[in-house]
Amino acid sequence: MFAEAEAAHYERLQLNDAGELKHLLTLDGLSGELISQVLDTAESFIEVGSRSIKKVPLLRGKTVATLFFEPSTRTRTTFELAAKRLSADVLNINISSSATSKGESLSDMLRNLEAMAIDMFVVRHASSGAAHFIAREVTPEVAIVNAGDGQHAHPTQALLDMLTIRQYKPDFPSLSVAIIGDILHSRVARSEIAALKALGVKDIRVVGPDTLLPMAVESFGVRRCNRMSEGLDGADVIITLRLQKERMSGSLLPSEHEFYSLYGLTTDKLETAKDDAIIMHPGPINRGVEIESAVADSSRSVILEQVTNGIAVRMAVLSMVMSGQINARRVASGE
Amino acid sequence: MFAEAEAAHYERLQLNDAGELKHLLTLDGLSGELISQVLDTAESFIEVGSRSIKKVPLLRGKTVATLFFEPSTRTRTTFELAAKRLSADVLNINISSSATSKGESLSDMLRNLEAMAIDMFVVRHASSGAAHFIAREVTPEVAIVNAGDGQHAHPTQALLDMLTIRQYKPDFPSLSVAIIGDILHSRVARSEIAALKALGVKDIRVVGPDTLLPMAVESFGVRRCNRMSEGLDGADVIITLRLQKERMSGSLLPSEHEFYSLYGLTTDKLETAKDDAIIMHPGPINRGVEIESAVADSSRSVILEQVTNGIAVRMAVLSMVMSGQINARRVASGE
Amino acid sequence: MFAEAEAAHYERLQLNDAGELKHLLTLDGLSGELISQVLDTAESFIEVGSRSIKKVPLLRGKTVATLFFEPSTRTRTTFELAAKRLSADVLNINISSSATSKGESLSDMLRNLEAMAIDMFVVRHASSGAAHFIAREVTPEVAIVNAGDGQHAHPTQALLDMLTIRQYKPDFPSLSVAIIGDILHSRVARSEIAALKALGVKDIRVVGPDTLLPMAVESFGVRRCNRMSEGLDGADVIITLRLQKERMSGSLLPSEHEFYSLYGLTTDKLETAKDDAIIMHPGPINRGVEIESAVADSSRSVILEQVTNGIAVRMAVLSMVMSGQINARRVASGE
Repeated sequence: MFAEAEAAHYERLQLNDAGELKHLLTLDGLSGELISQVLDTAESFIEVGSRSIKKVPLLRGKTVATLFFEPSTRTRTTFELAAKRLSADVLNINISSSATSKGESLSDMLRNLEAMAIDMFVVRHASSGAAHFIAREVTPEVAIVNAGDGQHAHPTQALLDMLTIRQYKPDFPSLSVAIIGDILHSRVARSEIAALKALGVKDIRVVGPDTLLPMAVESFGVRRCNRMSEGLDGADVIITLRLQKERMSGSLLPSEHEFYSLYGLTTDKLETAKDDAIIMHPGPINRGVEIESAVADSSRSVILEQVTNGIAVRMAVLSMVMSGQINARRVASGE
Repeated sequence: MFAEAEAAHYERLQLNDAGELKHLLTLDGLSGELISQVLDTAESFIEVGSRSIKKVPLLRGKTVATLFFEPSTRTRTTFELAAKRLSADVLNINISSSATSKGESLSDMLRNLEAMAIDMFVVRHASSGAAHFIAREVTPEVAIVNAGDGQHAHPTQALLDMLTIRQYKPDFPSLSVAIIGDILHSRVARSEIAALKALGVKDIRVVGPDTLLPMAVESFGVRRCNRMSEGLDGADVIITLRLQKERMSGSLLPSEHEFYSLYGLTTDKLETAKDDAIIMHPGPINRGVEIESAVADSSRSVILEQVTNGIAVRMAVLSMVMSGQINARRVASGE
Repeated sequence: MFAEAEAAHYERLQLNDAGELKHLLTLDGLSGELISQVLDTAESFIEVGSRSIKKVPLLRGKTVATLFFEPSTRTRTTFELAAKRLSADVLNINISSSATSKGESLSDMLRNLEAMAIDMFVVRHASSGAAHFIAREVTPEVAIVNAGDGQHAHPTQALLDMLTIRQYKPDFPSLSVAIIGDILHSRVARSEIAALKALGVKDIRVVGPDTLLPMAVESFGVRRCNRMSEGLDGADVIITLRLQKERMSGSLLPSEHEFYSLYGLTTDKLETAKDDAIIMHPGPINRGVEIESAVADSSRSVILEQVTNGIAVRMAVLSMVMSGQINARRVASGE
């Protein structure tokens, strides 16, 4: 019941009256139809990446600001590239040296950027709910795209994963999907589970030691597996998560070496998975920690396809959200 | 007499033979007509900011370099946005990691940038007179825009303030304007006073404790007020300045708390001002130090309009200065 | 013999089957004809720099990433400007804050960028052979331009020097060229010697103390001179190198002062050179260390022309390498 109320809340916040995305904060509450529509749009942009002139004029004259309160060159770069290929102007706001360090509040900074007629904020923040807070409380008329907030959501990562799965295994309801590693702290896993379920996947397993799995993970409709042989049994899709090495030294895990021996994705452990299973990782990979080098570089690995799809998915999200935001404002102003 | 000589000197330096701006170093010595012309041009760019495609091709194929020897993400961002909306290419030169750290002199660095055919430098520097020095001694054929030099001038900030005032109170000669806070160290205040006087304002008051007012401030043609009730009495326009918190701990001011109680702009203190007075601040604001939150967010506050106008004014300045510089070179080369 | 084998190796690596550049890693093994073709192309771009609209659409829709593992604002800026004047999109990847700091390998990072459909990497690296390694082992289908690798090569710097020489002294075989300073550690000197020889220069002298000259420097076909009077005797072209001041304190050189008195380029020491000798320096210059201020600013100095030519040469290299890479892929895919 609570989950339904929350989903309804997000729906009001990130969809306009016509049911189009006007922000992208989370995949919670998004329908399989809407997710498929994002993937279809992304598919059309993949062709753009292989063109000689990799640009379309969809966001010409729009300004996209990337606001990374938590540094991530990789994710910022993919959004910057996606925005430029849509012909937008991009402003990379360096938060640490910006006005917030002069004591300005986050709200004042964002309202200032809004007053500069910036059309879209791509936000990464260490606090869960930051993008949501901005879209609800601060600048609801600026299109907000969540590029990762705390342990909450990383919707564009999950969408690019769905696009990659669909390219190899389009029949989602028939799939068995295993997600391996630190599920407890992973916004990627949280968004992936939401997307897989919306697309009709029935058999989702989360694999890891109990210390890295959420307490009541079964309530999300997924299966808890402590053993890799069980988690990978008959799997079509295997998603390894990045292990935050800094957690290694704490009490959650004894050592990098022990993690690798128990949960590292090796050729041996892949025995129980389907022969044509695809192997995914959000990157950057720790070779010899989450995944064996031979597996990461094998023909089953689709890790680099994920990167390529990441640009296309972000182009799709940026253009759809901008369009939904414009339509929302048009309705609001009674045009 | 000295002031007149200085004004004449700046006029020669920043105007071409046709009386057009070819640099913007200071507002000292600029006529009310020229300032109004900048404001008129800016007004035409405000419409661009509300367009679906926020770009005009005025500076296409030109290169603008932002040279911030003193960091300021906010001001740099507004110039970058303004230049991009004029279709210029923008280079943000990171000074700290640049060649000056390899022992290269400032002059050599700037002459190198000139040799790369960069058309315009937007300069912020901690030393008063830096932009002036560059335009006179180093690269006179590159258009120089002063984005703040020491305690000397911040001309685009003052121009955007004038544009904001004009939108609400167009009859400058009839206005009473109060400027509150640390006048002594403020390049913003210095430029505002020059602009207000050029536009015909007769009643200008500077409000603050004696430690923060220049000794002979009356010689600028303004009135010194130590009490807010006197400074705000009948005021049409109230400009609060940003207080540099680092000065708080010195001998200039006892405490943040005491400053707020004496000079913080609160609903109470606004009693003596006109009912329709507008409230301005160059940002970023320190809520509860210079200004009460309720006042900053009230309907009288035009602080966010200032931000919007800042982009338009910078578009106006960049395009006018570029045009004046090109015309100056054309005359010099005898075409 | 070894040198020939090495040149053949580089030829295979950086030329396509039609003999066009598809990477630019080094000038070793490049023919005088190919170098002249780069200079001719650059010459055509010099005119672009003096146009009112300084842009050509040659790389429109292409993405160029600058990857500077060793910081250099100046060189990065010139490549960024060159790419933008060719209408490319430019991504400046900040290496220190990028994924390599999260433990990702260089190879994984580069393959990720390739998967984002980035067309060209401009690489600076502290290790000799880094650009070569990337082009051979990591991302051979991304056009690689070496912007300086360790003590190995700095090919675009040498090419811009050749363009500058050709503008003043087009008859290369008749020239006497002196290169002064720290030849031992200089990738610039190494690339210049390769280019001068390919263009037919017979009389090349390297001038400095024995501690700063390679042991068997004569085997490169150049003359070793310990005395400036001998090195500059009858010289048409004088190239001073930048002295890395940090080496001053070591055992290689007694003091800055002593270096200047022996090898600093002063009006006095220029006595033995030809009257119309031109004076070059890759910048940034240390006035009073490698060169007297009066000499650096004299009419014989072409140091600022080098900077202007640097943009044109980099435009030529970026556009030629992109075109050669595209042609190579077209052949490989059997079109």
